[in-house]
Amino acid sequence: MSSLSLSNGRLYGVGLGPGDPDLVTIKAAKIIAAVPVVAYFAKKGAPGKARVILDRWLAGPCLQMPLLYPLTTETHFCDPAYIEALRGFYANAEAAVAAHLQAGRDVALVCEGDPLFYGSFMHLYVRLKDRFRVEIVPGVTGMSGCWSAARAPMAWGDDVLSVLPGTLGHGDLVRHLGAADAAVIIKIGANLAKIRAAITEAGRLSAAIYVEHGTSQAESIVPLAAKTDDHAPYFASILIPGQGRRP
Amino acid sequence: MSSLSLSNGRLYGVGLGPGDPDLVTIKAAKIIAAVPVVAYFAKKGAPGKARVILDRWLAGPCLQMPLLYPLTTETHFCDPAYIEALRGFYANAEAAVAAHLQAGRDVALVCEGDPLFYGSFMHLYVRLKDRFRVEIVPGVTGMSGCWSAARAPMAWGDDVLSVLPGTLGHGDLVRHLGAADAAVIIKIGANLAKIRAAITEAGRLSAAIYVEHGTSQAESIVPLAAKTDDHAPYFASILIPGQGRRP
Repeated sequence: MSSLSLSNGRLYGVGLGPGDPDLVTIKAAKIIAAVPVVAYFAKKGAPGKARVILDRWLAGPCLQMPLLYPLTTETHFCDPAYIEALRGFYANAEAAVAAHLQAGRDVALVCEGDPLFYGSFMHLYVRLKDRFRVEIVPGVTGMSGCWSAARAPMAWGDDVLSVLPGTLGHGDLVRHLGAADAAVIIKIGANLAKIRAAITEAGRLSAAIYVEHGTSQAESIVPLAAKTDDHAPYFASILIPGQGRRP
Repeated sequence: MSSLSLSNGRLYGVGLGPGDPDLVTIKAAKIIAAVPVVAYFAKKGAPGKARVILDRWLAGPCLQMPLLYPLTTETHFCDPAYIEALRGFYANAEAAVAAHLQAGRDVALVCEGDPLFYGSFMHLYVRLKDRFRVEIVPGVTGMSGCWSAARAPMAWGDDVLSVLPGTLGHGDLVRHLGAADAAVIIKIGANLAKIRAAITEAGRLSAAIYVEHGTSQAESIVPLAAKTDDHAPYFASILIPGQGRRP
């Protein structure tokens, strides 16, 4: 730590939890109320869930810095143009955050869920961690919010729980579903038909629970088998609870 | 819900997070400060981590009800005598909690981490959920606390993350470690030598991080390869971060 200037600001990576503003931690609320700069990721034209949570805990005058993703609906994440656009976006975001830190201002970079669990925060963290002091504040993950809202005990005793991005191929999904006792499938969106087929092939359809907007006002929870269409937001998730050891 | 009497108390399953009292959620702190009865699992003679967190957020007079596990150090979890003892323990705990609920008193059953993620709460939940109103309050998991303390970005992009109990056999551990991009191994204790051998066989030793008492005063984090003894508490964990897609 001796190489890091103490006159620089400190970067906080702050998890905001799954959606309900009261599921923010005490520590996160204290930091949000205290820092001079709060940065958050968002898409152009959409306020983002993070903003709703933030508005509840901002205490005084504070510079709010949205970091606006490049539009990505037309391109695939393997497309070199998309990768290049994202790289430019993270470089700009890094410079914007670093400017405040160098000026001695603490910055809270907030994100939904937990910052180190599939979070965009990680892309800035790896770019800034060697130059600035960083503190990570874990948050309740979106998946914990979903299984609590669904009242589904997820993992018992010796259960293996796997988190599976719905972007995986059909064969990979079937293989991982077959190996795990409990599974959470994230990143649903346009992948739902493929995911449904994989869950069915793995023999887990009757146990699968579909959750949209867990812990927020728009929450919707149904057995996957009862959801007849394949429309889903990207941040929906599917839960397959474990059935492990129970005395 | 119509079959549940509104004159009965409500059961709250409340996650207390990974150890740092400030990593409790706003919602959990509000419930703990408001309910007339707080129940928690503990071992005879040990105060338990839950108590330390609780003491910070209890606001007024409140009946505290420890649920004391039967001694388990001498027996294995497959031993019929142990299973019988646990069954009796949960039946007694169920009756003690139900008595308060039937008398119209709300009960918060608190637990470290998240209540539905390997939590003892689940054993009472399945016994009480059809007779009483229950609300689940998710918490920051122990594993989120550990990877935040270790400043280890855990899962990126399409990474598959698996949670593996260290109680699994050597072969199962090697197989699951080979299939996952990122892994968290929980329930370490006397399993450490076996786990270390499995991680080494899976070729992941150089990436593995050993965490004891994450986010609490006694926190200790070292590369697993640098830990030369096989002594570990049961609630230690081992992190193997993912290396997925990064623009």
